[in-house]
Amino acid sequence: MGPALIQGASRGLGLQFSRALASRGTTVIACCRDPGGAEGLRSLQSEHPSLIDVVQLDVTSEGAVQAAAQHVQQTHGKALDLLINCSAILSPSGRGETSLRDVSMKALQDTFTVNTFGPLVMAKYFGPLLQAGQGSIGRQAAEARQQHAAVVVNMSARVGSIGDNKLGGWYSYRMSKSALNMATRNLSIELGRGRKKVICVALHPGTVDTALSRPYHKNVPADKLFSPQQSVGYLLNIIDGLGIDNSGKYYGWDGEEIPF
Amino acid sequence: MGPALIQGASRGLGLQFSRALASRGTTVIACCRDPGGAEGLRSLQSEHPSLIDVVQLDVTSEGAVQAAAQHVQQTHGKALDLLINCSAILSPSGRGETSLRDVSMKALQDTFTVNTFGPLVMAKYFGPLLQAGQGSIGRQAAEARQQHAAVVVNMSARVGSIGDNKLGGWYSYRMSKSALNMATRNLSIELGRGRKKVICVALHPGTVDTALSRPYHKNVPADKLFSPQQSVGYLLNIIDGLGIDNSGKYYGWDGEEIPF
Repeated sequence: MGPALIQGASRGLGLQFSRALASRGTTVIACCRDPGGAEGLRSLQSEHPSLIDVVQLDVTSEGAVQAAAQHVQQTHGKALDLLINCSAILSPSGRGETSLRDVSMKALQDTFTVNTFGPLVMAKYFGPLLQAGQGSIGRQAAEARQQHAAVVVNMSARVGSIGDNKLGGWYSYRMSKSALNMATRNLSIELGRGRKKVICVALHPGTVDTALSRPYHKNVPADKLFSPQQSVGYLLNIIDGLGIDNSGKYYGWDGEEIPF
Repeated sequence: MGPALIQGASRGLGLQFSRALASRGTTVIACCRDPGGAEGLRSLQSEHPSLIDVVQLDVTSEGAVQAAAQHVQQTHGKALDLLINCSAILSPSGRGETSLRDVSMKALQDTFTVNTFGPLVMAKYFGPLLQAGQGSIGRQAAEARQQHAAVVVNMSARVGSIGDNKLGGWYSYRMSKSALNMATRNLSIELGRGRKKVICVALHPGTVDTALSRPYHKNVPADKLFSPQQSVGYLLNIIDGLGIDNSGKYYGWDGEEIPF
């Protein structure tokens, strides 16, 4: 069984994915920008010292991603069974734009670099490790030609659905997730060729009580506001059921396919 | 009749939109990064000196867009009936990425700044002029509440359709157009409210013989390879028929709606 790599593991969904995977015995390479400030991750590491490896990684730097991939290969070998890209911001200010007045070139650039370009550059440098994965994650097909080596999950959001967008606003975040969905689709094609297939999906976690979305929960009914634990429970259930025929798709926490 | 503004007017579709609109008597504010090097535009201006105003604009600079909006308002008044965002690059190298190996953080950032962030920042600063437009472009509804002040066209491309993507590659370009489609959808919502409605659409021009796509025409059948004149003919036909009920949608040159 190859390890899982969680990008953006210091809090929210990333921290909970790390916890849930370690608790079922998976080795987790937990990447975050500032390990020193990641108290939740350090506490998790002390619970599972042999399973959690915390790796410093600033996903906005291509050089840092490349160096992290080399480090992971040296430390854990050349196989990776799962990559989950979790880091995301609503905008550098922490608020979604309510109108055009709030939009700025700089905030667009910074938001996309974290939410969209970082995850794609992760796939560039970790792609060879994923193609060498042992296929322990997901639902393996009986037929050898349909089997997969690894799974890539890009954490998207329903507000990234263009067709589903009825409310507007949140320009940077919405647009960055639409572009991430296209990146995921492209990855599913490139990494779905040949014998060492990698399943790539975009997932919507539901409305989760995390630092990112907390200011916006006033009107969410209690039974639709998930804890990270609930959401990750739903998402791991989907991930465990993924086969190559699911690759390139965009699913909600309930397993329903979302239109792009 | 208010003027039309073409962003990226020095060549290809932008130059042809300027020519076609001037030839039907519309005042055209033709924006391009380097007016000194825009020979086609200068020659068009000498044909229609009272209709073509060439304005220097680097769409990658928010300050430059803001300054251009002030200049246009001082020179042409506070009404704009049409904005067409045309500038686009496949990547800074001029080639689409054939695989992940070719992807880079810097090229993603530069491509999105031209193809996606620039057009949205145009809408930010020219939005008030569009909301003051005289509604000469498109199909006006009989009912006053459904009438529009202006039209925004973001030149997209079918390869920006996520659901339609079967081939992969061209990461930066595809992703930038998906994000531009989301921007267009968001704009249609924000600028579709209230009494001064602005119609916003994303259009696919077909495969057009321009500098951008010329290296990729080998396998295009002759009857599917359009000149800029043919493509702009089709697109103006669509634009002339746009009503508020078309806003937020994504159409091909043949008028068919494209799935996001």
